[in-house]
Amino acid sequence: MPSDIRRPSGRATDQTRDIRLTRDYTRHAEGSVLVEFGDTRVLCNASVEAGVPRWLRGKKQGWVTAEYGMLPRATHTRGGREASRGKQGGRTVEIQRLIGRSLRASINLKKLGEFTITVDCDVIQADGGTRTAAITGGCVALVDAVRYLQREKLIKGDPFHQLISSVSVGIYQGTPVVDLDYPEDSRAGTDMNVVMAENGELIEVQGTAESGTYSRAELNAMLDLAEKAGGELFDHQREALGIRR
Amino acid sequence: MPSDIRRPSGRATDQTRDIRLTRDYTRHAEGSVLVEFGDTRVLCNASVEAGVPRWLRGKKQGWVTAEYGMLPRATHTRGGREASRGKQGGRTVEIQRLIGRSLRASINLKKLGEFTITVDCDVIQADGGTRTAAITGGCVALVDAVRYLQREKLIKGDPFHQLISSVSVGIYQGTPVVDLDYPEDSRAGTDMNVVMAENGELIEVQGTAESGTYSRAELNAMLDLAEKAGGELFDHQREALGIRR
Amino acid sequence: MPSDIRRPSGRATDQTRDIRLTRDYTRHAEGSVLVEFGDTRVLCNASVEAGVPRWLRGKKQGWVTAEYGMLPRATHTRGGREASRGKQGGRTVEIQRLIGRSLRASINLKKLGEFTITVDCDVIQADGGTRTAAITGGCVALVDAVRYLQREKLIKGDPFHQLISSVSVGIYQGTPVVDLDYPEDSRAGTDMNVVMAENGELIEVQGTAESGTYSRAELNAMLDLAEKAGGELFDHQREALGIRR
Amino acid sequence: MPSDIRRPSGRATDQTRDIRLTRDYTRHAEGSVLVEFGDTRVLCNASVEAGVPRWLRGKKQGWVTAEYGMLPRATHTRGGREASRGKQGGRTVEIQRLIGRSLRASINLKKLGEFTITVDCDVIQADGGTRTAAITGGCVALVDAVRYLQREKLIKGDPFHQLISSVSVGIYQGTPVVDLDYPEDSRAGTDMNVVMAENGELIEVQGTAESGTYSRAELNAMLDLAEKAGGELFDHQREALGIRR
Amino acid sequence: MPSDIRRPSGRATDQTRDIRLTRDYTRHAEGSVLVEFGDTRVLCNASVEAGVPRWLRGKKQGWVTAEYGMLPRATHTRGGREASRGKQGGRTVEIQRLIGRSLRASINLKKLGEFTITVDCDVIQADGGTRTAAITGGCVALVDAVRYLQREKLIKGDPFHQLISSVSVGIYQGTPVVDLDYPEDSRAGTDMNVVMAENGELIEVQGTAESGTYSRAELNAMLDLAEKAGGELFDHQREALGIRR
Amino acid sequence: MPSDIRRPSGRATDQTRDIRLTRDYTRHAEGSVLVEFGDTRVLCNASVEAGVPRWLRGKKQGWVTAEYGMLPRATHTRGGREASRGKQGGRTVEIQRLIGRSLRASINLKKLGEFTITVDCDVIQADGGTRTAAITGGCVALVDAVRYLQREKLIKGDPFHQLISSVSVGIYQGTPVVDLDYPEDSRAGTDMNVVMAENGELIEVQGTAESGTYSRAELNAMLDLAEKAGGELFDHQREALGIRR
Repeated sequence: MPSDIRRPSGRATDQTRDIRLTRDYTRHAEGSVLVEFGDTRVLCNASVEAGVPRWLRGKKQGWVTAEYGMLPRATHTRGGREASRGKQGGRTVEIQRLIGRSLRASINLKKLGEFTITVDCDVIQADGGTRTAAITGGCVALVDAVRYLQREKLIKGDPFHQLISSVSVGIYQGTPVVDLDYPEDSRAGTDMNVVMAENGELIEVQGTAESGTYSRAELNAMLDLAEKAGGELFDHQREALGIRR
Repeated sequence: MPSDIRRPSGRATDQTRDIRLTRDYTRHAEGSVLVEFGDTRVLCNASVEAGVPRWLRGKKQGWVTAEYGMLPRATHTRGGREASRGKQGGRTVEIQRLIGRSLRASINLKKLGEFTITVDCDVIQADGGTRTAAITGGCVALVDAVRYLQREKLIKGDPFHQLISSVSVGIYQGTPVVDLDYPEDSRAGTDMNVVMAENGELIEVQGTAESGTYSRAELNAMLDLAEKAGGELFDHQREALGIRR
Repeated sequence: MPSDIRRPSGRATDQTRDIRLTRDYTRHAEGSVLVEFGDTRVLCNASVEAGVPRWLRGKKQGWVTAEYGMLPRATHTRGGREASRGKQGGRTVEIQRLIGRSLRASINLKKLGEFTITVDCDVIQADGGTRTAAITGGCVALVDAVRYLQREKLIKGDPFHQLISSVSVGIYQGTPVVDLDYPEDSRAGTDMNVVMAENGELIEVQGTAESGTYSRAELNAMLDLAEKAGGELFDHQREALGIRR
Repeated sequence: MPSDIRRPSGRATDQTRDIRLTRDYTRHAEGSVLVEFGDTRVLCNASVEAGVPRWLRGKKQGWVTAEYGMLPRATHTRGGREASRGKQGGRTVEIQRLIGRSLRASINLKKLGEFTITVDCDVIQADGGTRTAAITGGCVALVDAVRYLQREKLIKGDPFHQLISSVSVGIYQGTPVVDLDYPEDSRAGTDMNVVMAENGELIEVQGTAESGTYSRAELNAMLDLAEKAGGELFDHQREALGIRR
Repeated sequence: MPSDIRRPSGRATDQTRDIRLTRDYTRHAEGSVLVEFGDTRVLCNASVEAGVPRWLRGKKQGWVTAEYGMLPRATHTRGGREASRGKQGGRTVEIQRLIGRSLRASINLKKLGEFTITVDCDVIQADGGTRTAAITGGCVALVDAVRYLQREKLIKGDPFHQLISSVSVGIYQGTPVVDLDYPEDSRAGTDMNVVMAENGELIEVQGTAESGTYSRAELNAMLDLAEKAGGELFDHQREALGIRR
Repeated sequence: MPSDIRRPSGRATDQTRDIRLTRDYTRHAEGSVLVEFGDTRVLCNASVEAGVPRWLRGKKQGWVTAEYGMLPRATHTRGGREASRGKQGGRTVEIQRLIGRSLRASINLKKLGEFTITVDCDVIQADGGTRTAAITGGCVALVDAVRYLQREKLIKGDPFHQLISSVSVGIYQGTPVVDLDYPEDSRAGTDMNVVMAENGELIEVQGTAESGTYSRAELNAMLDLAEKAGGELFDHQREALGIRR
């Protein structure tokens, strides 16, 4: 692979943007985390509510779900407000389903009891990678919401199972790179979002060739980059949460 | 009136919360202001778009409008996401119409040319007075958007007409007070939102007796408080914008 | 202020249009009133239903709410039918919330018991001031609905608290005038809707400068006009209802 | 058939309710007719707008359409407001399509020119037969709208083709009766709506066995009743419009 | 009437298209029938669910309802997908109400017990007469669903009352014809859908003059054709179901 | 890996279900293919329309998009009809976006000219793997629609780029298996949908751990199975289309 790739940001191919996780960003939510992947800023608020959706009633388990939104001017040009258009767009729906599935992998729903935790991920500023930032920050907010349940003695036992984090990888100008920002993302031939567990295994892989196709070798090179970045993301999460390894 | 009223926050009856106006809070919008009235935090993004709504076409004027939203967990308990419910609630509609009308008073639409400026006011954290904060901060974002149009030489002349600001007043435990926070607001007998112009006159007054009625004398006492606070709000706006009086 | 103002209708500045309140206008509703402010005609039907909205259940009180609609051709040009567009417009939502809040001020909800009274205000013909006519007529329909509950012995005691009425005032060609019709309303610089209680105090004041600003002196002159008209409106309501003062 | 049938209203089997057609009922619409079939009252407003729906553009013809609505408390118990539920119910859609089809039979669309006439039929009070009243009254409002176009010299020639009217017939307690009111309609075994042209022929027949089935003989007996009533309805329409036979 | 009418398909005026009823077309539904009237193909799936709609609870009866849809490219040009437009069109609503009413005539709802049978009629390919095919095929699927309930011993007794079938008739080039295909239907002056019971009587008649009017004599000629075709349709249904006459 | 895995269907781990592709299944669409993966049956209709979506106008290229739907009783229990619920569910939206992206990879949009091809994928019967069947069958329908454009001389040149096909793979009882049917899919720990190009490379990979996590080794084993099945699917497509390799 070409060694002389020049990323718009000047980063190395395996270098993520600056990652910041700010807990207790707002005061009402049981877990509230501002996550920043460089200029991408997503507010992740985890809300605890008693009860579960109708289809889970009586099954003696809890539920974790996510909603995703973008402030209308989080992007270069103003996008319409979904609330005033009267429905969420397809991209929004697709992303919030991914976030919800991913976050459920970090919780033992049986031990959660009949509580629902909703993680709202609202993009304050977008510069590529909003869904991966949302998953990474949302997991920290979720842990705080679980700790709230424990602190308030609303549940016994510990439903927390494992940290999960996410990063994007892609083929930019023929070279695999990690954590694409908007200038890269909008020109990448292949774009892959990887959701990982602390044990080094995979939760979800979504890789799309926006133009052309990609080979098994490229897939593997991208996964290598994601794995390395995942390790760093878990360090950020543990540090934010005060968890020793 | 009782002199020994004790506000939950310990403020004097004519004392507003700490007001902060942070410009350039996000990087894409032509005007981006985070406004804080104490714990109430509203992000006001002004977006410039060429063209006007259909019903204004050919009338040689511009348009200023506002949209208002609340992040689902800006409040004590999670409110449903309006985008996923498929419509904006009545309160949202009522507030965004007030903000739009108010902001239009600060602009000469004829001089704006055929541009539309949309001011998105999204509540990050709510503690009472979100609409008055949105108007006060939205006006600063609007001025920045107008300056952008001038700087980019997209318009000639200056469509900026006057600053406008807004504050709530109410009758709390029988006494008129200014800038009610949530604990006051939820128990106030009368609640009034006042939108003011820099010339000391009124743009909009909306006063509601939540329980009982209020007298002309109380109305006047509330307006006196609003007028005094308005003076301070205009100082904050001018300071943020670097406008000398 | 100019004494030689000429209103399109030839009315004096403090003169309302002809006010008519026709009870029992339709036969199914528990209270049914056609209210006319000149050419503005609004049918106000108050419907009694057992039970209260979910969020009030178990609180041992009743509820009063209002819905507002305009027949598509109540106005000069046909407006779309909100039912076929699939949502109520912002103006409709804003008005029906105002009517509901206002009407609740005439009822002691605790004494109403677990009943909901919905007052439907449908504009048959519009000529300015539809919301003030709706409040004034809706209050009479509401009283009839309360009397129905008493007559049928569905409640004990009397939840009726006080009459409320409403009128618009504004600044037309620089002069304060009362009860604006459409030709005045569409050109007025400032427009204010005032909701009043029988005790002479205020329930709600909504005053908007459509162009420019208005002074405290103008506000007071408008409130003086509203107060005088309110006295007349209460006379009309009492006469219609057969209430002696 | 039994000769001793006793209708709740005491009417003879071939006797319609009192029919009233009041023109110019509201002042803005180009045609405005209040139609009453006994206690059933429907306001029919015909609105003229320049232009035709997209799919008719360039075809050198006009369009006639209808919308139907029921005020929430036109009926014994309050029905939800379709505008606030966010969609028109199936019954509403079915009825307004019938009215529109029927009214188009009275107009030569080619001669109408590129105008759209929308006939809004809003039920003020319901007592059975609202759709047949709407068609009968709507036709008169439509004629007035066509006359408006001629008077204003917006069209040349006369697009009016023929009067149409409508009445319901049904089998009540085994006997064919005409113009069913609500007490009959709600218990009738078979209910048929017949739309007729002045030439004595049929425009639309919709006959439904609500329980059981009906024979060809019963069908013919019902059509005989409708034919007779149709003659009377055309007399009412001609008298209201000042048309000599 | 002209004896030399030439139908586009070459059929005689009283000749239906080839009728085919294929049971067990899909494997999940309790009744699944593909019905073909020539090139018109409709899949009718009857689904059994325990319980009844809210407004029937406690009334000790069951419910039969229908839903109708057209695959987007069942027709010559692609129609929008109703699910993505966010609502069913007026034609769809009108048709599915007709199907539901018709199918209920074949069942004794009291004997059905508290079950709901929903018959989904989805048009795979359209060539005129989709609603009459849907009723004819839907009745066979409904019988299979009832048999399922009996076989599974979920009900005692037999709620099946009578077969119902449906066919269209119309006036094509001045001549009454039966079972119109699309080329005829799109040019017919009058179009009538007739729903019949096995006893030779009528369930529903809907006849519309698309242009002009039709006489009582034409109505009777059309009903004669429908009656004859109905006899054949009942034979097809009985044969498919293995019912001896 | 365990060699004694027993699939519910008795298939070998690398054995797909019977694949059938039936062209010209309906007669109106420019491309109409019934695709069957065992009991999963999806009707794929490709419709050609002149013009492109607004955001592509003037860009001298065409567009390919897909819509996905499931007949209400395609599944074990009846799912609500999305058209009557008023919106497409999240799963539907996610799937149709995947199908559209995948199909675009088989077409050179520049050479397509300003035409839009919409591929409607409607599930007649579901037994797992509906989206992969839809992509595989949709590609054949798309090729037929392109051939139509060429045959009708509406375009010059050949926009067809490459065949694409899709299959699901997963970890069932600890073992990688290909083309999961519903009994497997509902119990699989990991489920992956793979979209492949004829050149052996990847278009899209979406792999989700429904419970637990999966390793890189498992990912590779699953991709090996998909690659092998892909070869067979391309053979089926070429045979159906009469393309020699």
